[in-house]
Amino acid sequence: MSIMEHVSKKNVIITDDFFEYYTKLVKDTIIPYQWDALNDRIPNAEPSHAVKNFRIAAGIEEGEFYGFVFQDSDIAKWLEAVGHSLMTHPDPELEKTADAMIDLIEEAQCPDGYLDTYFIINKHEERWSNLCECHELYCAGHMIEAAVAYYEATGKDKLLKIVCRFVDLIDSIFGPEDGKIKGYPGHQEIELALVKLYKATGNIRYLKLSEFFINERGKEPNYFIYEWDKIRGRISHWEKRVAPAPHLPYNQAHKPVRQQDTAVGHSVRAVYMYTAMADIAYETKDKELAEACTRIWTDITQRQMYITGGIGATYHGEAFTFDYDLPNDTVYAETCASIGLIFFANRMQKMNLSNEYGDVIEKILYNLLPGSMSRRGKEFFYVNPLEVWPEASEKDPGKQHVKAVRQKWFGCACCPPNIARLIASLGDYIYSTDADTIYTHLYISGHVEAAINNQRVSISQESNYPYHGDVSFNVSVDKPTNFKLALRIPSWCRKYEIYVCGQKIEFDVKNGYAILNRTWNDNDNIVLSMDMPVELMVSHPKVRENAGKVCIMRGPIVYCLEEVDNGPNLPSITLCLDKEINIQSCETLPEAKVIVTAQGTRNVEGGCDEALYRPYNNIKITPVTIKAIPYYLWGNRGEGEMIVWIRAK
Amino acid sequence: MSIMEHVSKKNVIITDDFFEYYTKLVKDTIIPYQWDALNDRIPNAEPSHAVKNFRIAAGIEEGEFYGFVFQDSDIAKWLEAVGHSLMTHPDPELEKTADAMIDLIEEAQCPDGYLDTYFIINKHEERWSNLCECHELYCAGHMIEAAVAYYEATGKDKLLKIVCRFVDLIDSIFGPEDGKIKGYPGHQEIELALVKLYKATGNIRYLKLSEFFINERGKEPNYFIYEWDKIRGRISHWEKRVAPAPHLPYNQAHKPVRQQDTAVGHSVRAVYMYTAMADIAYETKDKELAEACTRIWTDITQRQMYITGGIGATYHGEAFTFDYDLPNDTVYAETCASIGLIFFANRMQKMNLSNEYGDVIEKILYNLLPGSMSRRGKEFFYVNPLEVWPEASEKDPGKQHVKAVRQKWFGCACCPPNIARLIASLGDYIYSTDADTIYTHLYISGHVEAAINNQRVSISQESNYPYHGDVSFNVSVDKPTNFKLALRIPSWCRKYEIYVCGQKIEFDVKNGYAILNRTWNDNDNIVLSMDMPVELMVSHPKVRENAGKVCIMRGPIVYCLEEVDNGPNLPSITLCLDKEINIQSCETLPEAKVIVTAQGTRNVEGGCDEALYRPYNNIKITPVTIKAIPYYLWGNRGEGEMIVWIRAK
Repeated sequence: MSIMEHVSKKNVIITDDFFEYYTKLVKDTIIPYQWDALNDRIPNAEPSHAVKNFRIAAGIEEGEFYGFVFQDSDIAKWLEAVGHSLMTHPDPELEKTADAMIDLIEEAQCPDGYLDTYFIINKHEERWSNLCECHELYCAGHMIEAAVAYYEATGKDKLLKIVCRFVDLIDSIFGPEDGKIKGYPGHQEIELALVKLYKATGNIRYLKLSEFFINERGKEPNYFIYEWDKIRGRISHWEKRVAPAPHLPYNQAHKPVRQQDTAVGHSVRAVYMYTAMADIAYETKDKELAEACTRIWTDITQRQMYITGGIGATYHGEAFTFDYDLPNDTVYAETCASIGLIFFANRMQKMNLSNEYGDVIEKILYNLLPGSMSRRGKEFFYVNPLEVWPEASEKDPGKQHVKAVRQKWFGCACCPPNIARLIASLGDYIYSTDADTIYTHLYISGHVEAAINNQRVSISQESNYPYHGDVSFNVSVDKPTNFKLALRIPSWCRKYEIYVCGQKIEFDVKNGYAILNRTWNDNDNIVLSMDMPVELMVSHPKVRENAGKVCIMRGPIVYCLEEVDNGPNLPSITLCLDKEINIQSCETLPEAKVIVTAQGTRNVEGGCDEALYRPYNNIKITPVTIKAIPYYLWGNRGEGEMIVWIRAK
Repeated sequence: MSIMEHVSKKNVIITDDFFEYYTKLVKDTIIPYQWDALNDRIPNAEPSHAVKNFRIAAGIEEGEFYGFVFQDSDIAKWLEAVGHSLMTHPDPELEKTADAMIDLIEEAQCPDGYLDTYFIINKHEERWSNLCECHELYCAGHMIEAAVAYYEATGKDKLLKIVCRFVDLIDSIFGPEDGKIKGYPGHQEIELALVKLYKATGNIRYLKLSEFFINERGKEPNYFIYEWDKIRGRISHWEKRVAPAPHLPYNQAHKPVRQQDTAVGHSVRAVYMYTAMADIAYETKDKELAEACTRIWTDITQRQMYITGGIGATYHGEAFTFDYDLPNDTVYAETCASIGLIFFANRMQKMNLSNEYGDVIEKILYNLLPGSMSRRGKEFFYVNPLEVWPEASEKDPGKQHVKAVRQKWFGCACCPPNIARLIASLGDYIYSTDADTIYTHLYISGHVEAAINNQRVSISQESNYPYHGDVSFNVSVDKPTNFKLALRIPSWCRKYEIYVCGQKIEFDVKNGYAILNRTWNDNDNIVLSMDMPVELMVSHPKVRENAGKVCIMRGPIVYCLEEVDNGPNLPSITLCLDKEINIQSCETLPEAKVIVTAQGTRNVEGGCDEALYRPYNNIKITPVTIKAIPYYLWGNRGEGEMIVWIRAK
C-alpha cells in the first residue's frame, strides 16, 4: 500500500466558480438557516426541537424529549459544518453561536460522561439496551466528528474534551474484555469518527475501539438477536410493541464484515461502515479488510450505483436491493448515502491509486449533491430520483417518497446538515501527496500548499470545469524542485493533451493518472486539455430499467429533460441517434452554462381516438427538438416531469 | 334502454375446447381442493379455519375464531361455485357435502337471523359497530349470492331462507327511516347480491335495501367518519389501536356515487359497487346512475386497464391509482378485481348494446383469468403481473407482492373461490335475447336454448376459438322463424365475412354487432369467419410504461415472452418491426396451440467489460429469434422471467 495522505482543507483555498457558489451558500444561507431550523424558527417546516432537547437535558428548561431518537446528530452535523466552514471562512459571530451550543452540550453531559439527550431525558435506565435501533453510538459518532472539526478549525478543545470523556465511558462499557458489552451500533458512524478522534488526539485506544466495533459485527452468536431476545424483551423502539427479530442485512450485521461481498441493507449505514473499514485497513495495514472493501466498492460502483452517483435503489429500508436493480422512478438514492460514498471513495483512494475513486466523487459532486438542494439553498431532496412524474408522486403510494419539489427542513433531517458539512470540507478531497508526488483528484479552481520532501510547493489551479475541459496549473516553488504532478484523467475523458509552459508533452499514465515527473521551476504552467464532447451513455445490458435508453452526458455532468423545456409526457420522446447534437446556452436557466439540444420524435395521440391499446400502425409521431439541462439544476423552475434516461433509436 | 336479458346458464351447454378444460377443472379439482382447503386439509398451505369457524359458532366445537374477519365469505363463494356447477354438472356427492355445510350454517345462525361467525364467536356486542373495516355486509352479500345460486341449481331453499332471515334483520337495522343506521358496507358486495335476491324472490324490499346502500354512500356527513369518531372510538380493527380517520376514496365513499367519474380506491370494492350501480340503474331505469356507470366504465377501460384485463395498478390498498398509470412490474391486477370487472361489463351490456363489453369480458377470460391459475388448478396468482423478474420479487421489497410462481391457498383466499364461481357460471355470459334478437357475445362452443316471440330457438355454436377465427352456428327451430341473430365482432378483428348456408351475405353492423335479420329455417348454418393475424399492439401514448414497446396479440390472446424460451434478461430484447412474424406450435407447451416467433436483437455484454455506464457506441447486439407464448400459460414450466411488453424498433 502507498503512503498517500490527503491534503487537509486547511491548506486548500477554493476559488472555483462552480463550488464557490455552494460554499458561500453553506456559509451564508444553509448554516444560518439550519441553525434556525434546529431552533424551530422556520415557519411551516416540520419542528426539529434539537436545541431544546439539549436545554431540557441540561436542566435549563422543562419539557419532554421530542423528535427522532437520533435528533442530537443534527446538532452535531451542524457543528461539524460550522467547524469546516470556520477553517476556511472565519466568522466570529458564528463561532460565538457555536461556542454557546458547545457550552450547552457540556451542561447536558452527565457526570459520568454520557451524552445523548434522548436517554438523558427520562430514560437513563435504558442506556445501551437497544443498540440496534436507538442510535446512541451513531449520535456519539457525529458528536466526535463535530469535535474534531471544531478543534482543527478553532483550536478550541472544549467539545473535544467532552467527546473524549464520552468515548472513555463507551470504551469502559464496550470491548472484548470480560464483562464488557459485545455489541456494536445499529447505525454505523462512530467507527469512522473514532478513527478521526484517534488521528486528532493520537490516542490509540480510540482506533482499537473502532476496530472492536468493526470486528465484532456480524459474529455468531449475533449480538442484535441476543439483545432483541434477552435485553429488550423483543420490544421494538419504533413500534413500541413486540416485534420480529431484527433483519440483520439491514444493518450489515448478517455476517462478519470481512466476509461481506455485496452492498446490502440501509445504504447510509453501509457506506459509513465501509468508510471505517477502509480507514482501519489503511491505518492497521489489514489486508483482509482492504480486500473486503475492494469487493464491496466494486459491487457498488459497477452494479448498484445510479449514473448520478445515487445509491440505494429502494425506499423500503432506504436500502440497496441487488445487482443491476436500478429503477429510476421508485429509486431512493438518499443524499446522505452518496455523501457517505464520497467518504468511502476518499478512503479507498488512499489505499489504491486509481482514477475510479475520483470519478465517483466527481460524479456525486456535479450531479446528485448539488441536485439535492435548491439554488437558494433552503430546500432539499432526501430522495434523488432519475425520473419524476408529479402525478405519480401524488397518487401512487409506491412513489410518494419521490418528491417532485424540494422540501423544507425534514422531520428526519439528516440530509441538509450532511450536505453542509460535506461542502464545507470540500478542500479535503482535492489533493493528496506521498513522498514525491502531488496528486490532483478534482478539477476545482483554487490553491494548495503542500510539502514534498520537506520542500514547500504551492500550486494554483484554474478552470471553467465542469463546463470546459481545459485546466491550468501554476507551480510556485522557492527553488527548482523535482516532484511528480499526478493529474487524474476522468473516465469520461477519451481524448486529452497536456502542455507544460505551452509545449505539448509526453507523459506516463498510471491507473488513470497522468504522471508529470520533472524538475519544476517557479511559475511553471501546466495545461490539461480534455476534449469534452456530448456523449450518449448507455447502461450495462443487465440494467433492465435503461434498456433502449441513453443518458446525455458532457464531461462529468449528467443531463436531464424537464417538462418546462420539453412538454409533458417525457417518456413519449425518442432521441434520434443519427441526428446532430448541439450545445448552447439557456435563457431561462442561466446557471446552466451549457445545455444540450438533440433531435427526436414524440408519440402523439390520434388515429384511434381514446383507445388504450391499438395496432402498431396507428402510432402517430411528430418531430421534436429535445432540450436537456444539467441534472443538478432540475426542479428550479416549478413542478414538472423530469427524466435522465431517454429512449433512443 | 333496451330490454335485453341474459340467457341463464341453465339454458346453455358448454362443449368448448378451451373452457371445457377449466369447467372440468373447477368441478373435478378446484371445488374439491378448495373444500379441503376450507377444512384445513392441504399440507403446507396457510390454514383457512373457515369451516371450523362455523362449527364453533354453531356450538358443535370449542375454540376461537381464526382467520380474517371476512373468512365466512370463502365458504359462501365455495357454495356459490358448487351451486353454479351443479346446475350444469349434477353431482349427488358434492350436493350432499354442500347440504351438510348449509345445515351447519343454519345451526350457526342466531335466533334473530344474524349470521357472521366472527361476531357470533365472542363479539356479539360489536355487531355493526365497524362497517368500514369489518366486512359483515360483505360476507352477508356472498352468502346471499351462494343461496341464490344454490336455489337456482337445486331448487333447495334452505340457504335462501337463511339469508332472507338475515337480510330481514339487516333491513330492520339499516335504512332511511328514523332510528335506523345510515351506514353502508366498507367492502361493497351485498348491493349486487341484494339485486340477485330480489330477482330470485321477487321481494322488492331487497332491491330497495340495495338502493339505500348505494344512495347513502359518500353523502355528507360521512358515515364512515362518524362511525370512526363516535362509534368505535377511532380504534382500528386491523391495527387494534387508535388510527387515523378512514381514507374515503379507498372505499369509494368520498362522494355520492352519482358524482363519481373515475375508478378509485380498492379495485374489488370498486367494481362490485359499479356492478350494483348498473344493476340498479337497469332495474329502476335510473338514468343518472346509468350515466355515472358509463363514465366510470370508460375511465377503467380506456385509462386504467392492463392489456390482459387486469385492473388496480398498485399493491398499496390493492387499488386503482390514476389515469394511464399502468406499471407492469409493480402492478397489482388482482384476480378478483378482473372477475368483478366481468360482472360490471355483463351488467353494462344489458343497458347499452356495444361490443366493448364483450371485448373486456373476452380479454379477461382468455388472458388474466386462466393465467391466474396453474394448469392443474391447484395454484393461483392473486397478483397478475405483466413483467416478472424473480430476483426482484425476492429482493426488492416493492415487488415482493409480485409472485414469480403461483401459490397454494392463501391466508386471504378470496381469489381461488372467486375463479371457481366465475368459471362455473360461464354460461351466463354468452347469450342475451330481447324481443326479436339473439345476441352472441362470446365465441364459446356449445348450445343455447332460447325463446324469441314465444318461439323456441336453439343454436349450437362450434369453433376453435380463440386460436381460430371461424365460428360456425347451427339454428334449430320448429318451423321457419324470423328473428335477428346478432354476432359480436370483437374489436381485435379488422376483417371478417359471414356466410349463411355457404353463401357470403351482406348485413348491418350496429355498435360492433353484425345483425343477421332473416327468416331462419331449421338446420340453417352460419359461419362467421374472422381474420386472425398476429397483431403488434401499442399503448395510448400517455401510458409511459409501454412507450417504445409492443405487445404481441393474436385474436383475443395476449402473448408474452418467458425466460425458458428466450433466455434471461428479457428487457434486453428488441423486436424488429420490419421482419417477418410467424406462428407455429410449441413442443414444450402443447396447450399453447399457437405460439408466435419474431426476429429481434439482444443487447449483450462486451466491449467495456463490467462498466456500469459506457458510451453508446460500445453497445453490442446479437440477433435472436423471439418466441412468444399465450400469456395465460406463463409460469407453467418453472420459475423464470416473463414480459408482455417488448421493446421494438
